[in-house]
Amino acid sequence: MAYEESYIEGRNAVIEAFRSGKTIDKLYILDGCQDGPMSTIRREAKKHGSLMKFVTKERLDQISQTGKHQGVIAVCAAYTYAEVDDILEAARQKGEDPFIFILDGIEDPHNLGAIIRTANLAGAHGVIIPKNRAVGLTATVARTSAGALNYTPVAKVTNLGKTMEELKKEGLWFVCADMDGTRMYDLNLKGPIGLVIGNEGEGVSRLVKETCDMTAAIPMKGDIDSLNASVAAGVLAYEIVRQRMN
Amino acid sequence: MAYEESYIEGRNAVIEAFRSGKTIDKLYILDGCQDGPMSTIRREAKKHGSLMKFVTKERLDQISQTGKHQGVIAVCAAYTYAEVDDILEAARQKGEDPFIFILDGIEDPHNLGAIIRTANLAGAHGVIIPKNRAVGLTATVARTSAGALNYTPVAKVTNLGKTMEELKKEGLWFVCADMDGTRMYDLNLKGPIGLVIGNEGEGVSRLVKETCDMTAAIPMKGDIDSLNASVAAGVLAYEIVRQRMN
Repeated sequence: MAYEESYIEGRNAVIEAFRSGKTIDKLYILDGCQDGPMSTIRREAKKHGSLMKFVTKERLDQISQTGKHQGVIAVCAAYTYAEVDDILEAARQKGEDPFIFILDGIEDPHNLGAIIRTANLAGAHGVIIPKNRAVGLTATVARTSAGALNYTPVAKVTNLGKTMEELKKEGLWFVCADMDGTRMYDLNLKGPIGLVIGNEGEGVSRLVKETCDMTAAIPMKGDIDSLNASVAAGVLAYEIVRQRMN
Repeated sequence: MAYEESYIEGRNAVIEAFRSGKTIDKLYILDGCQDGPMSTIRREAKKHGSLMKFVTKERLDQISQTGKHQGVIAVCAAYTYAEVDDILEAARQKGEDPFIFILDGIEDPHNLGAIIRTANLAGAHGVIIPKNRAVGLTATVARTSAGALNYTPVAKVTNLGKTMEELKKEGLWFVCADMDGTRMYDLNLKGPIGLVIGNEGEGVSRLVKETCDMTAAIPMKGDIDSLNASVAAGVLAYEIVRQRMN
């Protein structure tokens, strides 16, 4: 995943950056500075999971590129989204059947980060998320991905169903998680595969589900309804890993 | 898991309750009330993940049992910890080999909640946590467990290693997760088993690891170090489920 750092200096610029949805990884804030705009910045930083570092004026002057920091400098992460083709190319280069995570509307940034982390370690070649109905690559996602965001390409598409149809032409099969499905151990999950994980509350949306070739059920032996979305993704991903290794 | 609700009314009483580490699930707060003690209460509520409901004075009067709420009523959850014997008894009653999660110092309440949720759905009979070095059953844990805390017994013990030695006399084998271990698919994880999950940063502590009979490795094919603790717990738990079902 291409990653570039850029600096935003000055109170209004930083507040604007938060409002526009930019991913701010880190803030350098003048220690002891407590006025109105600074409270706004701190509140936004908390909300978006940006790291805050309280530093002296000398340190700020040192970091500043414009000399006009007004007590605050934001370090912005610019994660460039990949294209779906980049993901297929990554599989081709490794000489492996494509293994892609499709996230149908994950809303919690901790879940998104943990799932990208799992995708990386399970040897998936990339992650596809929809433009709407989903969290983007915020600072919290970057942090909970534990560095995976720097390696695993994430593509953002307008229409998940259409993208899946195109990937089917490339030979991919799609499996989604659903309680009413076939026990995952009884499915053939080898070969080029897309693993579809649904939204935390509502699961996989109808259209996306209809586009899937298989529905996999994780055995549920307990009293409650469902696993946490990132845990379910991990359990299914590793069933795929197990079958691929055999 | 036995669960009782109790009410704490009045500012100082509520602040005290937070300070003493009580699990406060929900707060009813007089809408518009913004003074010093109330800010402290809101800050503590945010820190501990307690739900805040802003209500009218009439509603508060209605809920109040003492008539002296001073603008705030806390709903406390009293989760009674189970004994290790209760967990073994639960297995016996189901006629199953015991399957217990041992959490060696999980610190993040979201992870603890997600793991209790996984334990419930994987059919484990209970969870054991240590008295020190770990998060307790806070409101955040209860919420992220998605109700599992009401079903899956959680026991708190002084010395994990000693408890494990006692459980060995009951026929349990212990497996812990570690990258240097045997590939989990190649281990025999059937029969009475304790699954040991380590701390988020440091993994399983040395003494606990030495008490384990097996070390299981989750295959890692990526660029980063390790899975999120609750995802790793899920992947290992379901390998145990798979082997038990065969």
